[in-house]
Parts: sequence; C-alpha cells; structure tokens
Amino acid sequence: MTQNIYDDDDFFEGYARLGRSVEGLQGAAEWPALRSLLPEMQGLKVVDLGCGFGWFCRWARHAGAAQVLGFDLSEKMLARAHEMTSDDAIVYARADLEHLTLQPQSCDLVYSSLAFHYLEGLERLMGEVTQALRPGGRIVFSVEHPIYTAPSAPGWVVDAAGHKTWPVDGYLAEGPRSTDWLAKGVIKQHRTIATYINMLVGLGFAISHVEEWGPSDAQIAALPSLAEERERPAFLLVAAHMNLETEKRLRP
Amino acid sequence: MTQNIYDDDDFFEGYARLGRSVEGLQGAAEWPALRSLLPEMQGLKVVDLGCGFGWFCRWARHAGAAQVLGFDLSEKMLARAHEMTSDDAIVYARADLEHLTLQPQSCDLVYSSLAFHYLEGLERLMGEVTQALRPGGRIVFSVEHPIYTAPSAPGWVVDAAGHKTWPVDGYLAEGPRSTDWLAKGVIKQHRTIATYINMLVGLGFAISHVEEWGPSDAQIAALPSLAEERERPAFLLVAAHMNLETEKRLRP
Repeated sequence: MTQNIYDDDDFFEGYARLGRSVEGLQGAAEWPALRSLLPEMQGLKVVDLGCGFGWFCRWARHAGAAQVLGFDLSEKMLARAHEMTSDDAIVYARADLEHLTLQPQSCDLVYSSLAFHYLEGLERLMGEVTQALRPGGRIVFSVEHPIYTAPSAPGWVVDAAGHKTWPVDGYLAEGPRSTDWLAKGVIKQHRTIATYINMLVGLGFAISHVEEWGPSDAQIAALPSLAEERERPAFLLVAAHMNLETEKRLRP
Repeated sequence: MTQNIYDDDDFFEGYARLGRSVEGLQGAAEWPALRSLLPEMQGLKVVDLGCGFGWFCRWARHAGAAQVLGFDLSEKMLARAHEMTSDDAIVYARADLEHLTLQPQSCDLVYSSLAFHYLEGLERLMGEVTQALRPGGRIVFSVEHPIYTAPSAPGWVVDAAGHKTWPVDGYLAEGPRSTDWLAKGVIKQHRTIATYINMLVGLGFAISHVEEWGPSDAQIAALPSLAEERERPAFLLVAAHMNLETEKRLRP
C-alpha cells in the first residue's frame, strides 16, 4: 500500500493551506498548461486518479463531462471533496491506486494531477488505464519533474554571489526518495522522463505532448518567486492517446 | 551558418584523439543503445546528418544498407572520412545542416549522432527530414542531454565530503550556450526534452523510444569514470517513425 501521507495530521494541515487547496485549480500555476492539453469535455466519461479535494472533478462536470469518477487514498481529502460537491454525476471512491482496477472500456479520459510519482506500481496502473479507455481515449497527467525528484539533497544551492543552482545527482537511479515536504519522510518514486514516455509507448499510446512546465511572464509578474521554476522545472505534463494500431488490437 | 568548430585546428586535433574518433562506434559508450533503436538495415537508403569521420556510414553499409549519404560541415572530417572509405554506395557531401535540402521521399532512415544540438534551425531541418522519408521511414538520433547543456557553469560541483552534483540552472531558457570543450567558445543550442519531442510530434512523427542514456554495469566495470553519467545523463537518444495519419496526408 502506498504511504498515505495525506491523512497524516501535519501533512494534511499544511496541504490544506496551499493555494491549490484553498483556491482550487486557479491556485495551481501549472493548471492553464494542463487544461490546454485536455480534449473538449462535452459528454466525456472521466476518471481522476488522485482526485484530492475534487477540484478537477467539479471543473470537468462544469465543462460538460457526462460522468466523473474520482479516486483517492486519503479519507480526509475525500471527506472534504464530498462536502464541496452536490452532483450525482460525480462519484468519489477511496482506493489505493497501487491496486485499483477499472472497468474495461469505461471512460474517455483519464486525468491525474501530481499523484503518479507516489506510486511504485505505476506500470500496472497504466495497464488498467489502457484497457479502461474507449476508442479515441486519452490520458493527461502531471507528475513532479525528474530533475526535481532526482537529487539526494533537493534544494537550491546558493553561491557567494547569490546565484542559485539545483544540485542534480542520481538522475538515472530510479526508485524511492524520502523528502521533508509538509511532513517528515514523504516517500516519492523518482522516474526519468524516458521511463514515463516509454511506458506509455509500450502500452500502445501515442505521445501527443510533453511539457516541462515553467511559468509565463505574466505569472512571474504576479508572483515573482515563481521565476525559479524556469531554472529547473518542478512539473512534467504529459498527454497521450491510444494509437490506431492499439485500438485495432484491443478492439478488433 | 553554423559555427564550424570541427575545422578549428585545436578542436579538430582534440576531437581526433577521442575514443569515438580513433576506435569509431566501438569507442562511443552510447553506441550499443543507439544501435538497438535502429531498424533492420538490409536494403535501406540512409542519410547521416553530421557524419564526421563516416564511421556510422560504413557500419550501415556493412549492416546491409543499399545506399548511405553522409553530410557534414567539416572539411577536415570529410577528408578523413574519404580516406577511410572505398565503397561507391557511400557518398559524403559537405553541407551546412542549417540550409540542407533533401530530395523528397529519398530515404528510409535518417540518423544523426551528437549534431543537432549545434543547430539553430533544427525545426527547418526536421521539416526537410519529414518530406525526405519514404513510407515507414524513421529517424534515430542522439543529442547532448538538456541537463548537460542547460547550466550556465557546466561542471561537477564537489562538496567537502567529495560528493558530486551537477548544478542545473536555466533549464527552460532555450538557446545558445558557449562552453570550452576541446576549444574555447564552442556554441551549442540548449533545448528541453519536451521541445525535441513536441517538434517531432508536430511534424507527424510518432515517438518510438526515448532514452536518457547511462552506462551499463559492465561498461562501468571496464571504465569506472563512466559512473558519473548515471548521476546526470549527457546523452539523449530518440527514435521516431512517421505515423499513419502523416503518411496518408503526405502521400495520399
């Protein structure tokens, strides 16, 4: 079972105070970029893996999705999601994504924001996603960028002149990283960009777009501290769709 | 015109002494990985962009390619390539890849090793490649890895305990980088992984494989200094093929 850090009291309290928790999608600087990778939502059946407070689920319905299924491991987050939702076409369910199964050909879009880097068994889950997508199906997700997750000592190094660099090591050594973010000993799984891409290609997806996210000039003007994200990206966004050969093979 | 650094006396002399110059492909640690991305060569028409001493061109013919066309900007390298080649099916030509045009539907495989990061106009060249490939055509190339090219001060930082990290900054600031490697002021173009991938996708390629290259255990046992390449990769390898929709559009 994945470490359920979001139900840790200290972590949850810290997380619940972040911009992205209080303001929802508008509080997540990478959301405009992630949204631009999404298809027209009208009529789609959508699955959100790691739905948290349900901000995306509610946005998806507002944008026209026919049905949204949000999964999360955290009871606290799901409780908050329930409180904020009154829409029978949004269903929240508690699930460990390491063991989740999805109904065959049950959805058109699988979405996930900053959840996959917690999973050891991502390839198993991606296999579930593959068989759950209907013809023309897509996956759009974000994870922490490998440059961000790789280091043994993640954190800016500032030289005598005040210049900041990000100390990369262990980039090709995939596996767990323990960091102190909101709580001590948060475990994430470091993977390279190549691993994410080759996993999707191997499962029969075609890569539509990859983004190593950085803030726009307007975002930096509004929040100057964001500028450091251009020095080393913290988020990786990926969009992929079933390729024709895969669809023929899976659904002859 | 691209900086013709390979015809600089100091640079050329240094380059000509590298393992990959003296021993050819066997002297390039990433070659086994790059080779594994190549298709069966029998009967193929092949273009090598930045062919240098022609090691790959000769390998391709040996592996069964019907014809190989190698382009390079360096007169010195091409002279050496000519000296080492006696095969009418291999043609070397001097060309600035910034301005190269390729005959429509003239080849099955475009290959390039560590050349594209010198080019400002890579997207123009990739457009040429797209129209030059025949149905089923592929491109396989390596470039310096963006983590390697990004820093304003590329070079290991060693702490008091002897631990090495690679100081990343400017990762999302694409454009020229001047470094001192074999000669002073060698100009390379830094691009992100996303840019390489999205450029290919935008031109109608499907990504087959991405590799952020690192040495095998056997390679490190044979040459321990290679171990640092696992800390931050120096090479990015990419293989892509024309997708079906592109082929239908270009060649209805």
